[in-house]
Amino acid sequence: MGNPKRIAYFVSDSTGITAEVYGRSLLSQFGDIQFDTLYRPHINTIEKAKRLAAHVNEQAELRDDLPMIFSTMADKQINECLEQTNSHYYELFDQFMPALIEATGLTPVRRSGRVHSIQQPESYDARIDTINYAMTNDDGTHMENYANADVILVGVSRSGKTPTCLYLALHFNLRAANYPITDDDFEKGCLPDVILDHKDKVFALTIDPQRLANIRERRRPLSRYAELKNCHRELALANDFYERYGFRVYDSTTHSIEELTSLIVTKLQDN
Amino acid sequence: MGNPKRIAYFVSDSTGITAEVYGRSLLSQFGDIQFDTLYRPHINTIEKAKRLAAHVNEQAELRDDLPMIFSTMADKQINECLEQTNSHYYELFDQFMPALIEATGLTPVRRSGRVHSIQQPESYDARIDTINYAMTNDDGTHMENYANADVILVGVSRSGKTPTCLYLALHFNLRAANYPITDDDFEKGCLPDVILDHKDKVFALTIDPQRLANIRERRRPLSRYAELKNCHRELALANDFYERYGFRVYDSTTHSIEELTSLIVTKLQDN
Repeated sequence: MGNPKRIAYFVSDSTGITAEVYGRSLLSQFGDIQFDTLYRPHINTIEKAKRLAAHVNEQAELRDDLPMIFSTMADKQINECLEQTNSHYYELFDQFMPALIEATGLTPVRRSGRVHSIQQPESYDARIDTINYAMTNDDGTHMENYANADVILVGVSRSGKTPTCLYLALHFNLRAANYPITDDDFEKGCLPDVILDHKDKVFALTIDPQRLANIRERRRPLSRYAELKNCHRELALANDFYERYGFRVYDSTTHSIEELTSLIVTKLQDN
Repeated sequence: MGNPKRIAYFVSDSTGITAEVYGRSLLSQFGDIQFDTLYRPHINTIEKAKRLAAHVNEQAELRDDLPMIFSTMADKQINECLEQTNSHYYELFDQFMPALIEATGLTPVRRSGRVHSIQQPESYDARIDTINYAMTNDDGTHMENYANADVILVGVSRSGKTPTCLYLALHFNLRAANYPITDDDFEKGCLPDVILDHKDKVFALTIDPQRLANIRERRRPLSRYAELKNCHRELALANDFYERYGFRVYDSTTHSIEELTSLIVTKLQDN
């Protein structure tokens, strides 16, 4: 008997990011089946392809089920080399292109890595700028920059502001700043004017108190900061602000970074 | 005559990230054809679907060519509503699943958003931790943490370290630190021991001097920091270090964040 766990490869002669994202998405449709996954980008010579093919064939022997390969591969020869392995092989463009060409009358150029390369230095620079913007405007620093923000996230410490800002910058090219709501604000009983001046850009994060306490406990064990009671208090006060100011509120307990991000982008588009 | 520019939609009842990544990849295969693109995630009610369908049909009237829709859609009714628009409609799972099911004998659960949701809080927490690691260990801070790093990027200021670290963290779940090489290091004539102690994790970035000067000029106009001559000098000295220490060197002039990241991940896997 071989290893009962299935294996899936994400392969490309370029970054392999498309193969990986789409491949994982397809695999996720098979519910609870666990896959070993291997990410193998930059398979851009026949030698590399042959080494990978040998690995695939070896795994085919060792396991109950044939390996699955999801690939985006511009080079025909490399493609053939992998197609001939003892596997279920899916070249993702090949599977799709014929229908697309027929329906649209468009003519494809078969070239790898187009979508994740530096094609236009100017728009690439703009992208780097938005990432720097997120870094510079993390955690309430440089609030004078809020006029240039596309998004301002507010929430108590550890409610998910920073990862969400970074994802907004990296994936959606948005200038995302964030402001941590702290005891200072609770004592004043209000949020800074500069935030209220840009209310149309503000998105507020909330989180389940117990989950927040767990996250904070890992960061600062046995601190008042991490106490469940304190988390309850901070979140109740923050939620009061949200209600008073009419902020749009999202819950990071149940929403991943990707979900929060796509919800925010959708709202921005609706405006 | 209608608008000659084609329009493409990336649609989903969930985050739409798969539809967007794969859709853009497919479009990039059509070379220089420019598309207007619209990202429409969270189309999860019939009402939203009808509004979107109306938009699509309107665009079909306004343009020379039919709109293209790339979607990942678990709900059959919403899917049908969009399929009936005046468009080229591609449901990305539908196009692929039959072949996958037949080849593997696997049974899919049709459910949306599986891949980008919080399915296992523990691994999700680990992911947030790696993002925080990148933030905390940006720009040479907390070098005592290098023992826990998966990757340490080194390079002169503005050579691309920070965006690459963030991408490594967000997309590949790697603990990525970075260290800026400065005049301090050049004067000492060596890099800190803590970096050399972890040489197996070090990746060095270089960049074309003229491109570096342009990037720095936008940041600090007319500064010595941005002068071409100074950029030449810093890069020559940094490259001397790289050679002396035998670092793996990548060029951010020609490689995007995604390319640098996937090259680094490949190298780590080869180790």
